[in-house]
Amino acid sequence: MSAVDGPVTSPRLSLNQATVKYASLAGAVDAARSAGIEAIGTWRESVAEVGLATAARTIADSALRVSSHCRGGFLTGPDRGAALEENRRAIEETATLAAAGAPGSRAVLVLVVGGLASLAPFAADAGVQLAIEPLHPMYAADRAVVSTLAEALDLAAPHDPDVVGVVVDTFHVWWDPALPESIARAGREHRIASYQVCDWLVPIAADPLLSRGVMGDGVIDFTPVTAAVDAAGYDGDIEVEIFNQAVWDGDPVAVAARVAAAFDAHVARPVVAP
Amino acid sequence: MSAVDGPVTSPRLSLNQATVKYASLAGAVDAARSAGIEAIGTWRESVAEVGLATAARTIADSALRVSSHCRGGFLTGPDRGAALEENRRAIEETATLAAAGAPGSRAVLVLVVGGLASLAPFAADAGVQLAIEPLHPMYAADRAVVSTLAEALDLAAPHDPDVVGVVVDTFHVWWDPALPESIARAGREHRIASYQVCDWLVPIAADPLLSRGVMGDGVIDFTPVTAAVDAAGYDGDIEVEIFNQAVWDGDPVAVAARVAAAFDAHVARPVVAP
Repeated sequence: MSAVDGPVTSPRLSLNQATVKYASLAGAVDAARSAGIEAIGTWRESVAEVGLATAARTIADSALRVSSHCRGGFLTGPDRGAALEENRRAIEETATLAAAGAPGSRAVLVLVVGGLASLAPFAADAGVQLAIEPLHPMYAADRAVVSTLAEALDLAAPHDPDVVGVVVDTFHVWWDPALPESIARAGREHRIASYQVCDWLVPIAADPLLSRGVMGDGVIDFTPVTAAVDAAGYDGDIEVEIFNQAVWDGDPVAVAARVAAAFDAHVARPVVAP
Repeated sequence: MSAVDGPVTSPRLSLNQATVKYASLAGAVDAARSAGIEAIGTWRESVAEVGLATAARTIADSALRVSSHCRGGFLTGPDRGAALEENRRAIEETATLAAAGAPGSRAVLVLVVGGLASLAPFAADAGVQLAIEPLHPMYAADRAVVSTLAEALDLAAPHDPDVVGVVVDTFHVWWDPALPESIARAGREHRIASYQVCDWLVPIAADPLLSRGVMGDGVIDFTPVTAAVDAAGYDGDIEVEIFNQAVWDGDPVAVAARVAAAFDAHVARPVVAP
């Protein structure tokens, strides 16, 4: 059954706002609902456009769950004080939006790089889980130095799992020969804060940051990864986050429907009973 | 002292032919010699252009060492018999060229992907070491699935180190958090067949296959990698292999001189005594 013909197969699908980059928060919410998607991953930029109070109301009115909030981190610049303050605001946003979301919402703030020791106490007080996202080694020079799930777990280790978790994003980790072991370890250590899916396109796009594809358009076999994440005990929403110019240029409602159908065809099957 | 003013600092510098892609074997040899470089890494395509006998004579006349021959592997296609035969020819070429090279030449055939079990006996008979080259995870979808030095070492493990080794190429492995341990392990297991250097450019080139830079033009810190390879006991030539359109478009003699100067400035220092 495809998403456009009725309810999506998996109620765990979440539309990450980055997939409909040019839509406002309200537009992204509408697109998700129109495709029968029950959860959304939010981004700080779209919250800033309307203000946190309005954003929270939009989420509350939508009856969508909030699966994560993107993103904190980038604590490597010259003005560390300002960066910390900005990340504290991001933590507060995360707590507010998750509280506004439907039951099952997760107060998870995705971090690209560290600053954990400084942020963890604040996040703990706010009831927010910081989530370290390892990025593909293609980005090791200019985006983040955490390239593998194992490294992210090592960084998280000193902290309470309720406060610091990790993101499993298929685009970033699919190549890792240690992926099955690392996902199993993440499960044992109760660290999986978010599971995100999108495909790896071949060839890589001219801008490697935009080389993500809708599930089924690339080479990733989602079945074993989803099964491993499942076996590791993660039962939260599964976000689809696609940085891709052609996807962004599409109508958000059509994109959400396409995402739901692709999720149904390539990701959801192994999760649900036949 | 720069290479153009006199002898290069390190006699271990080797010019991989891919760095002067449009030069014939004779042209590449001339370019290396003009820059005071004492060794060359050869490619099958340029040998095929003139035939193996002529290629071997060119090498012998040059008095250059042969540091490696590129490349075998690609044993994943539909016609496995033909691929095996092609790899046997590559092994023979490697033995012939290394024999023609100056003392210190290495009969090392660089492999991109497996087929080891089939090729190892033949290589052992020919006195050729097969070298498994892990490629950056950026290429995991369409080039090779061996992404880390640790994986390459695992693949090599069942074989005699004289027959199967690994390539340490800074471009492919610099990002790996386990690199120091893996290089040390490669040393303990006597597997380092070749050490290749070139830089990682930021941003990545539009064609990621051509995103390599001359040492110093990118982000790689060669000092710790070279020190680790040194400590691991590798004392052979160090090849510079640069896939880069602008480098290829340059005059081979000028490119070789530039490579020698960059090697002197960024790679050789930690290797030689002050």
